[in-house]
Amino acid sequence: MRDVAIIGVGMNKWGELWEKSLRDIFTEAALKAIDDAGVDHIDAMYVGCMTSGLFIGQEHLASLLSDHLGQGPIPAARVESACCSGGLAVRSAFIDVASGMNDIVLAGGVEKMTDVSGDGATYALATAADQEYEVYHGATFPGLYALMARAHMEKYGTTRKQLAEVAVKNHSNGSKNPLAQFPFETTVDAVLNSVMVADPLTLMDCSPITDGAAAVILCAADKVKNYRNHPAVRIIGSGHATDTIALHSRSDLAYLKSTEKAAAKALKMANKKLSDVNLCEVHDCFTIAEIIVSESLGFFERGQGGPAVEAGETRIGGAIPINTSGGLKSKGHPVGATGVAQVIEATLQLRGEAGKRQVKEARVAMTQNMGGSGGSTLVHVMEVI
Amino acid sequence: MRDVAIIGVGMNKWGELWEKSLRDIFTEAALKAIDDAGVDHIDAMYVGCMTSGLFIGQEHLASLLSDHLGQGPIPAARVESACCSGGLAVRSAFIDVASGMNDIVLAGGVEKMTDVSGDGATYALATAADQEYEVYHGATFPGLYALMARAHMEKYGTTRKQLAEVAVKNHSNGSKNPLAQFPFETTVDAVLNSVMVADPLTLMDCSPITDGAAAVILCAADKVKNYRNHPAVRIIGSGHATDTIALHSRSDLAYLKSTEKAAAKALKMANKKLSDVNLCEVHDCFTIAEIIVSESLGFFERGQGGPAVEAGETRIGGAIPINTSGGLKSKGHPVGATGVAQVIEATLQLRGEAGKRQVKEARVAMTQNMGGSGGSTLVHVMEVI
Repeated sequence: MRDVAIIGVGMNKWGELWEKSLRDIFTEAALKAIDDAGVDHIDAMYVGCMTSGLFIGQEHLASLLSDHLGQGPIPAARVESACCSGGLAVRSAFIDVASGMNDIVLAGGVEKMTDVSGDGATYALATAADQEYEVYHGATFPGLYALMARAHMEKYGTTRKQLAEVAVKNHSNGSKNPLAQFPFETTVDAVLNSVMVADPLTLMDCSPITDGAAAVILCAADKVKNYRNHPAVRIIGSGHATDTIALHSRSDLAYLKSTEKAAAKALKMANKKLSDVNLCEVHDCFTIAEIIVSESLGFFERGQGGPAVEAGETRIGGAIPINTSGGLKSKGHPVGATGVAQVIEATLQLRGEAGKRQVKEARVAMTQNMGGSGGSTLVHVMEVI
Repeated sequence: MRDVAIIGVGMNKWGELWEKSLRDIFTEAALKAIDDAGVDHIDAMYVGCMTSGLFIGQEHLASLLSDHLGQGPIPAARVESACCSGGLAVRSAFIDVASGMNDIVLAGGVEKMTDVSGDGATYALATAADQEYEVYHGATFPGLYALMARAHMEKYGTTRKQLAEVAVKNHSNGSKNPLAQFPFETTVDAVLNSVMVADPLTLMDCSPITDGAAAVILCAADKVKNYRNHPAVRIIGSGHATDTIALHSRSDLAYLKSTEKAAAKALKMANKKLSDVNLCEVHDCFTIAEIIVSESLGFFERGQGGPAVEAGETRIGGAIPINTSGGLKSKGHPVGATGVAQVIEATLQLRGEAGKRQVKEARVAMTQNMGGSGGSTLVHVMEVI
């Protein structure tokens, strides 16, 4: 397999983008990435999108977007793995370049969620759960993650305050990210006293729905010398694993096996230890998710994720900064774009271009992007050369 | 890139499968392919599906299916390019194996279309067209292909009888395929006198909606010696190209540029000429599609596709047998599965296992799978060693 580098990144300001259609949002981010890379063409592209069919009545998305981007006849493929469709797009582009099929490949992600038609955003998102065994019986994602939170609290004594600390930290980071949907700071009290969504999760424990896109340009490492706009960041590990998408089939609701397995694969490919990782973007669709993920990745012992966030270990400047971008919680969560945006944050940090949220001496970064309640996980490890 | 072989194929009887859910249909085909290959595991899988979100309210499909297949934690990705999602799954698995990422990879396709909820199958399928510029204004696929048919008739004098001859040939072939949805023969008169759908296309010019699945097992060619159930068939060329998905943006409605480009790429990679190809499965979603595709691939001069089918050149025993399986027209068209089933037919023909529809001395086969009205095309070239 050939070595693969990230030579360009681009995303737009995320939020409720009523005046732009999905194709406009995607094209904006893709053109930024192409500009950032300094390339005059791309050979192929992969687009992560969870469900443009249900959100805006449009499938066949990659062809539409390659045309709108002016890249006409190139191979363009949409990939889907629910909320980790973006991470899957990065992996697909990585494999494509590594195989030798193409040299310069765009991996993008997009979702337009706020002006959903049909049965609404909660129904569309619920299609990431098991329809026959979960959704038809009334379960939606706040409820499923509330079950996971209750299991974690029961087993390890995790507190609502610890959950709230995740939101406080991520909003603090996000307040330094000009592209975040909700770049405001918050407090533990504000989180605890916001409206209850699914006990114990309040509104401020939940990531929002968002319109947004993100794109990165990958290039065969031996061709990178032509594109020297920025320090070269390499993808050195890619791990992908699945689990049951129905919660009831799992032996432990308070742990994420797909995350453990994907991380182990990515670190093995990268020939790195977890202790080599200087920062990590994780999938905090709900505050409890960040805590369970931080344990499943192995940063903390099981049950220690809550105390760790409370002690500030995951802040910028802490032992392992998590979600320096603001995470899904503050930056926003256009589901298909999230995994790509994580890779963008990792790249900016490794380049030393993360501004007020820069982690000092960042050499190795990890991203963890997850579908549904953990039925699939993508983990990538990147290093600056 | 490593050489890649097809070591197993499997599909179920296609039709209206009311008693089976999507996961059952897929698993049946996948297990057949695994049995056919004689493997005891798969390393990864790709699933082509156009819109399970709109058809059955289920996304996150690949994780669901890898779990239901008992392959638990393997990497599993869904890919989508409308009606060529199946071809895209084959290409994705091909690139994965060729890259060295995995040795044994399943490429499957599935669609469950007949008990659609929500806005119905015509709406779900129309999401393969440009929603903002075509569908919101009333266009659906029979109408779009009727426009293409009218353009071809006007430009080249193609006749309704020539269109009907495509249906007659494909039903004749399909009557020899025990897995076809509609394995009956038909006549030119029956096609011409069936109910009008979108002038000049009658019901019998249209492929049906279908529940079905198909799967193939790909393997690194240097590992194939362990799996010798059948003659080894190699994928020697893979071509993927896109075009505008809106018809109005094309300079010629009676030609398919994405098909021309994808075929040129696949033949170049395969180091073959079109005259080396002994049979071809093409995307006859409507009878006119087969005629235009046969010209765009280069088997006939522009305008000569109609006369060629009328003269019997595309029958089994003709100069270039097209759609020996019965095609989408007779075999059925579960959109995500179709591209995989084409590769299965090619494999069976190259192995000499196609029974009553066997093409003599078949050494090289081609498949052409297309999304929407040709906004994307996948072409594969296979050879028996």
